[in-house]
Amino acid sequence: MLSAVFLSGAASVSAQQASTVLLSAEDSDPNRLGWMQGFPPAPERVIGQPDSNYFSFPKMRWTVCHFRELLPTKQVSRGLGAPVPFSYALDDAINDVTFTPIDGSEPMTWQASLNENYTDGLLILHQGQVVYETYSGCLDEAGKHGAMSVTKSMTGLLGEILVAEGALDEQALVGDILPELADSAFGSATVKQLLEMTTGLAYSEDYSDPNAEIWAYNAAASPLPKPDDYTGPRTYYEYLATVEPEGEHGQVFGYKTINTDALGWVIARTAGESVTSLLSSRIWQRMGAEQDGYFTVDSIGTPFAGGGLSAGLRDMARIGQLVLNEGVMNGERLFPAAAVERIRQGGDRQAFAAAGYRYLPGGSYRGMWWSLHNEHGAFAARGVHGQTIYIDPTAEMVIVRFASHPVAGNAANDPTSLPAYQAVAEYLMEQSATP
Amino acid sequence: MLSAVFLSGAASVSAQQASTVLLSAEDSDPNRLGWMQGFPPAPERVIGQPDSNYFSFPKMRWTVCHFRELLPTKQVSRGLGAPVPFSYALDDAINDVTFTPIDGSEPMTWQASLNENYTDGLLILHQGQVVYETYSGCLDEAGKHGAMSVTKSMTGLLGEILVAEGALDEQALVGDILPELADSAFGSATVKQLLEMTTGLAYSEDYSDPNAEIWAYNAAASPLPKPDDYTGPRTYYEYLATVEPEGEHGQVFGYKTINTDALGWVIARTAGESVTSLLSSRIWQRMGAEQDGYFTVDSIGTPFAGGGLSAGLRDMARIGQLVLNEGVMNGERLFPAAAVERIRQGGDRQAFAAAGYRYLPGGSYRGMWWSLHNEHGAFAARGVHGQTIYIDPTAEMVIVRFASHPVAGNAANDPTSLPAYQAVAEYLMEQSATP
Repeated sequence: MLSAVFLSGAASVSAQQASTVLLSAEDSDPNRLGWMQGFPPAPERVIGQPDSNYFSFPKMRWTVCHFRELLPTKQVSRGLGAPVPFSYALDDAINDVTFTPIDGSEPMTWQASLNENYTDGLLILHQGQVVYETYSGCLDEAGKHGAMSVTKSMTGLLGEILVAEGALDEQALVGDILPELADSAFGSATVKQLLEMTTGLAYSEDYSDPNAEIWAYNAAASPLPKPDDYTGPRTYYEYLATVEPEGEHGQVFGYKTINTDALGWVIARTAGESVTSLLSSRIWQRMGAEQDGYFTVDSIGTPFAGGGLSAGLRDMARIGQLVLNEGVMNGERLFPAAAVERIRQGGDRQAFAAAGYRYLPGGSYRGMWWSLHNEHGAFAARGVHGQTIYIDPTAEMVIVRFASHPVAGNAANDPTSLPAYQAVAEYLMEQSATP
Repeated sequence: MLSAVFLSGAASVSAQQASTVLLSAEDSDPNRLGWMQGFPPAPERVIGQPDSNYFSFPKMRWTVCHFRELLPTKQVSRGLGAPVPFSYALDDAINDVTFTPIDGSEPMTWQASLNENYTDGLLILHQGQVVYETYSGCLDEAGKHGAMSVTKSMTGLLGEILVAEGALDEQALVGDILPELADSAFGSATVKQLLEMTTGLAYSEDYSDPNAEIWAYNAAASPLPKPDDYTGPRTYYEYLATVEPEGEHGQVFGYKTINTDALGWVIARTAGESVTSLLSSRIWQRMGAEQDGYFTVDSIGTPFAGGGLSAGLRDMARIGQLVLNEGVMNGERLFPAAAVERIRQGGDRQAFAAAGYRYLPGGSYRGMWWSLHNEHGAFAARGVHGQTIYIDPTAEMVIVRFASHPVAGNAANDPTSLPAYQAVAEYLMEQSATP
């Protein structure tokens, strides 16, 4: 089965492998490598079905812009109206901003960091205006890119909106909202524990372990026909009902995608709409989006709430600005400010510390967003290959990045990303302080 | 395999079966039947993968609006600009226009014809203004619907554009343009013969014959994994290369979808762009479209040029108006008028007569459009379940219809469609003649 793609890049390069030589961003550029060019493409340049390797590096650098060509998907409609364009105040000098990578000694320029992180698209908003925008690899301004776990923050935002509006009680037990999950590990967890990923679940995402639960999850999640002898769960819902408890709820942060899938189900049951539909009606149709987004789905059309979103870079920037603005976009309030206030406030820092994220010391997780708890109060949505929506309220800055870093894990790109974002934030604050 | 869906509805109801009692449009309404409602839907209300029956009636009435949730697809981008809305001059009195069905004696109202034909959406443009618009079943104004063989007319229009612009020689042999097809039946056919479907091909679309070539085509076309013991062609391209000759080219009209797939390949090789990409760059991005469209694809991402398009109703109306205007839309010329002139002129009427279309006497086929050669010079794109773009140049009228008639074949709906279109055309001409 080829369902590794649904998650965080099982077929990608591990950090250990990455210490060997990898193709650079330039050398792995999908246009340069010629994937899927020609009619038909040369056989060795085809990325298609069935192909269990379509999410392996360097093919993955093409695939991240083309999930819908490989898998069934569900639309996040932007509606039918006119998009609301951004205003622009481009500043090329950002390319020359320098920073020192974490664990490094040599300074690096912002521009050099783009290829270092296999950036496919990056846009910076400052005080609501676009000050920087670039595209590379498989992406252009009219393209869409896999957001991977940035999707979780969209699902989490919807959850926090429902909580802030009183439609969803964060202290309610998941098993009371979803009787189907009453006997699973989720049954005794609260909605708040889902939103903070402090559930106690017997679930491993260790791809190097053939007995890890991730593989059963993958098989259940695939929308493609199952093998004839397959007897396991056939949908996200069926899989979630099989999850066993491990440890206590509410003690330790454990980054497990299935929390978001369970939250997606809670949202659908509560709102009477799927995550795709609610994301469209509450946000996408009302923020002036340029493009529809879409989610991959399972065999019964359930959107992959934990990682299935693909969207345009500018529309991800609109989401970032909407969140920075605490729910206001183009002069209209789309949801209560409290939804974002809760996210900004962050989650349980002790529970988070126990998980040992080296590059996020003092951080926390709430509403499926990562809080840095740095001096600027920055918080972020983060995807496994370097995708991000990074929001710095102090600098009034939003950075959105799509990337296809060969290493599946932000530890590979954080050292040249987080200090770069901070450096640009400081640069922009200086600029606006100068009359 | 579930590839019947790619074609004209193998799993749907035959005309013979239809003489027995069928659910009415109202009783088969997908909302009323509750397909895919709830989280999860009740097991007996799921339409998903793998399900070889998703294109059977009445499930099909849901599926026509949801192909992308079941299959990989490729986008026809509308670009990023603002849509150009239609102007409206709605006229409810159209509902009361009456006509006499072909072969019938009792008059019928326009309004009654809508359910009679399982209409999911219908829009009438008169002199460029919307005079009538209605949605039903699975469709609404922001939805998309399978165009089925209306797709052929999009591919054909692109072909005629390339011919009119001199990029494609209609007398060229397909085998010279596509050496891969030189040894197939297509090799010795001209581009013009493709465009008029007068090729001599050993190819049967008779779904009741288990040895009909349609089944091998279906299997090749499916983007889903092939059975382990499958040894046949795996893509549209590979299938086309296997087609054997039967009879002479240029003698008889034979409605065979594979002509359009071959034309799609000719277009891709000639333009250096896939049909999806060319349709976007030449038409969709320039006509003020509201929504993206999309095509289903095969296992290597080849768009199904013969039937894979899904789109919004209003965008199909924009195509109709663009064709009525012979290439001009919103004051801009998108392609040479000659492309439409060729289509309007029609094809070889003798070759067409030999095919025996009872409800299209005196008709012809050119550029993958059907010419009625009636007094109004009407011509149309036509899909198997009643989809149409019907253009009446004399009445300055465009009718677009999405439908999900249970019977796979226009002979089932033509008797209550073609005279209804003519009656509305006459009504609109009277209206505009009255000062």
